[in-house]
Amino acid sequence: MSDDKITAEVSLESLHRIFTVPESNGTLSQIDAALSSNLDGFLRQHIVAEEKDLHEIERSFATANIPEQPEYVSGYTDFILQHLVAQSVHTSAPGFVGHMTSALPYFMLPLAKVITALNQNLVKVETSKAFTPLERQVVGMLHQLVYGQSQPFYDQWLHNASHALGAFCSGGTVANITALWAARNHCLGAEAISRKGLHGAVQAAGYKGLVVLVSKRGHYSLGKSVDLLGIGRDNLIAIDTDEHYRVDANALRQRGLALIAEGYKVLSVVGLAGATETGSIDPLDQLADISVELGAHFHVDAAWGGATLMSATHRDLLNGIERADSVTMDAHKQFYVPMGAGVVVFKDPERLSSIEHHAEYIIRQGSKDIGSHTLEGSRPGMALLVHAGLHIIGRGGYQLLIDQGIDKARYFAQCVDQQTDFELVVAPALNILGYRFVPAHVQSALQAATDSGWIGEVNAQLDQLTRYLQKAQRAAGRTFVSRTRVDVARYDQQVVSVFRVVLANPLSTHEVLDQVLLEQRQLAASLGAQVFLEALEGLLTER
Amino acid sequence: MSDDKITAEVSLESLHRIFTVPESNGTLSQIDAALSSNLDGFLRQHIVAEEKDLHEIERSFATANIPEQPEYVSGYTDFILQHLVAQSVHTSAPGFVGHMTSALPYFMLPLAKVITALNQNLVKVETSKAFTPLERQVVGMLHQLVYGQSQPFYDQWLHNASHALGAFCSGGTVANITALWAARNHCLGAEAISRKGLHGAVQAAGYKGLVVLVSKRGHYSLGKSVDLLGIGRDNLIAIDTDEHYRVDANALRQRGLALIAEGYKVLSVVGLAGATETGSIDPLDQLADISVELGAHFHVDAAWGGATLMSATHRDLLNGIERADSVTMDAHKQFYVPMGAGVVVFKDPERLSSIEHHAEYIIRQGSKDIGSHTLEGSRPGMALLVHAGLHIIGRGGYQLLIDQGIDKARYFAQCVDQQTDFELVVAPALNILGYRFVPAHVQSALQAATDSGWIGEVNAQLDQLTRYLQKAQRAAGRTFVSRTRVDVARYDQQVVSVFRVVLANPLSTHEVLDQVLLEQRQLAASLGAQVFLEALEGLLTER
Repeated sequence: MSDDKITAEVSLESLHRIFTVPESNGTLSQIDAALSSNLDGFLRQHIVAEEKDLHEIERSFATANIPEQPEYVSGYTDFILQHLVAQSVHTSAPGFVGHMTSALPYFMLPLAKVITALNQNLVKVETSKAFTPLERQVVGMLHQLVYGQSQPFYDQWLHNASHALGAFCSGGTVANITALWAARNHCLGAEAISRKGLHGAVQAAGYKGLVVLVSKRGHYSLGKSVDLLGIGRDNLIAIDTDEHYRVDANALRQRGLALIAEGYKVLSVVGLAGATETGSIDPLDQLADISVELGAHFHVDAAWGGATLMSATHRDLLNGIERADSVTMDAHKQFYVPMGAGVVVFKDPERLSSIEHHAEYIIRQGSKDIGSHTLEGSRPGMALLVHAGLHIIGRGGYQLLIDQGIDKARYFAQCVDQQTDFELVVAPALNILGYRFVPAHVQSALQAATDSGWIGEVNAQLDQLTRYLQKAQRAAGRTFVSRTRVDVARYDQQVVSVFRVVLANPLSTHEVLDQVLLEQRQLAASLGAQVFLEALEGLLTER
Repeated sequence: MSDDKITAEVSLESLHRIFTVPESNGTLSQIDAALSSNLDGFLRQHIVAEEKDLHEIERSFATANIPEQPEYVSGYTDFILQHLVAQSVHTSAPGFVGHMTSALPYFMLPLAKVITALNQNLVKVETSKAFTPLERQVVGMLHQLVYGQSQPFYDQWLHNASHALGAFCSGGTVANITALWAARNHCLGAEAISRKGLHGAVQAAGYKGLVVLVSKRGHYSLGKSVDLLGIGRDNLIAIDTDEHYRVDANALRQRGLALIAEGYKVLSVVGLAGATETGSIDPLDQLADISVELGAHFHVDAAWGGATLMSATHRDLLNGIERADSVTMDAHKQFYVPMGAGVVVFKDPERLSSIEHHAEYIIRQGSKDIGSHTLEGSRPGMALLVHAGLHIIGRGGYQLLIDQGIDKARYFAQCVDQQTDFELVVAPALNILGYRFVPAHVQSALQAATDSGWIGEVNAQLDQLTRYLQKAQRAAGRTFVSRTRVDVARYDQQVVSVFRVVLANPLSTHEVLDQVLLEQRQLAASLGAQVFLEALEGLLTER
């Protein structure tokens, strides 16, 4: 294997060789070919099913010394296959329905390779050229998806040097931060913020502080955003939700009015379109009204649910999103693009100007360099993959993908409902749902009970069982659901642990979903679960 | 070509097909193979040399409508080859010495494909498993490179669930923001910031405001950081530099003391190790002393220069960096990794705790999920590429890469110096330099002149010439230098435009560099340059 020789000795000549592609068929080029010809086969062959203890894996990555001598490429590749790939997660497996990662359309892989090979830097036209217009177009297409402006609007703004309709980001977190950043600077005046800092600007405006209002189901990135932006985590006001995990809009309005009366400025109202843990969609139209009343920037975190707008069948669920001042969408979620690609779009083409910045060597005033309106600096050409998805799958194709996910979530919810030893806790608004394993007679007892202390004890035991089952299922490596905690209306808002299922992978068939439940029931019947079930029996007897 | 058929009709069946690799040899798989077997050949074949007008390129990316119907993969691929790849920048070309993008070691491409294929999400162990320990190790290795702690230190901290030695980021900008974020929260108390926001916390601490001190050569991401963090752009205090573009440490100290006397808190002193535009290195050891005196967090932005620590020959240039509280390094620069990979490391393993955050469904307290200490949320497994570089190139290999770049910069500076019609403006501290084309007799006249008004007029004319030559060279597409503006000690700090050259690509030979200068001289002799040269003659005659 000739690639073995490349770094056998350290010399300038050997270095030159590693910067040109070798004529070889070493291990690495075999992997390259295998990934192209049979991706799923490769992953099934190389990823071991059963989970290894994390501490054991860590032993392979324990030293902090940078190796002094170069290693053979083939030796390194073998190490990576054995210690990294084998111990990775088969995120595209149809039975892996616990997180927001799905199988990818096959064309994403070669196009991702094109991105790496071209290695453009999107911060400036000089190192990205055609990628800059392409990225602007992608942002414009997602803007159009939300706001539905006509082409003349885009003729004016899409490639406008001094404006940006949004920002392409590494993910939804940076998108959310960017939205609140622009909102903050716009609200207090970019000039004032620049000159005096947030401290001085808030003081000058005479506010007691800034607040952001969002459902308590808001993504944790919003907490990060208000921390980072200096607004303060305690000024992210979490509002209660109804029994379907949608924000209580009236409570939000009352809270906002009260805070204004206290001297606070409501910087932003954030609506959720596909909450991360429950998939719920806030009443966006109502939130838009309230935002106007409160004088707040209306942001919608549609990192998960934004793609639903491509489905004519279900886009009405997001009614009101077109009134948002800004919207976050993650392309690496339901646009079926690999990590990490997110976008934030702004209704007003001038809103992002409040964070505009320039430098002498790039992103000069008047240049079309995108970097003048982004939080990040150097960035890869990931927008190509979104562009490819939008063209090769098309709106029509995405509609099918979205619809099949929602259909499957309904099917799964039905299965859970029909089976007496499972309890549906979070019914699917989109394609996310939550449930838990509860033996039938325990469910009956819970329904009949009125003593909330006792209900709490039972729920605490069930939490332990849920936790055990989820971990055992993950460790077995055949199927995977995630786990979260949600408050439940019928248990007086007690917070319970549930299995969380996300149904976006088109390869997750009904049979696979049946298998997920079957495996959970088997695990519940296994020895490991007995201690939790016995404790439950104890509680039932005591009562 | 069977991949043509895949999305010919929109149906669930056709969708399933695009989620599995087709048995085909369509255009896209040919590209896939070509990129593996002959990357440079592919790029040379498909990227057109001569620059097309940006407006013309934009016409290919003008519509904001998401296509309704799916497109053929082969048709889409043809479009991308013609309108995107052809109009991209050959960033790895040896003559492309204007920006910080170099050729990549060949093994990066197949390993990047492994990352996309596995599509792990580094935010949490559940979707990254072995990638989490690997990323922690990479951060640890770069920590060790800076701080040189012994293995027992890393045994304690590297895989510690509640701490992080740093954060792997999409790039240096996020790394710098993270450093100043942690510094800000640590300085005011994370608890106070959380509760009261920056406004209330600054007020409670009794400060007039926060300031950050940095050389006026500081990267524009620092301006973004202080904006984002609410510190205020005007509170990023730019300090003058000496004739070698190193910060005037004494001026910085005086300014810091004066600001403290006025009631400000010096949040951070930022030192530069390889300034973006000049490559200069601040006197880090001295800045460390001053930071202690001012009670400030000492951050070093070594996005460019950090890799120099791997060279035994040159690492002394960065003496004092080991005293920094935090250090930014970009892996997609001199670690020869594709976009985008940066890292920030913290001396104190507890410093990042001031920005720690948790959620119910992931990054739970006590988990090893890295996402609890990062600005970003979902992230790809880019750390693998840094890990690969550190192993396959090794410290010894990187030393050769670093040394050859510095040697070449010295060679290039010598060439510029020896040729009477070029003026060296920024001598290379590392592998970055700045110069301009100035006819010999104009240089003599400038040297003899004392009237700074007249010198200013000549420099303004030369700026126009420099701008013209740089654009013409870029448009011709054979070689490329970038352009920036720097103040020049010998012209009373007048700010002039210069060609900026960055020498990191190991394939940029002396012959290529000679060619860069030759082409510039030819362009200066061309018709387009005459108008500027004649204007210069006019100024000489007037005098």
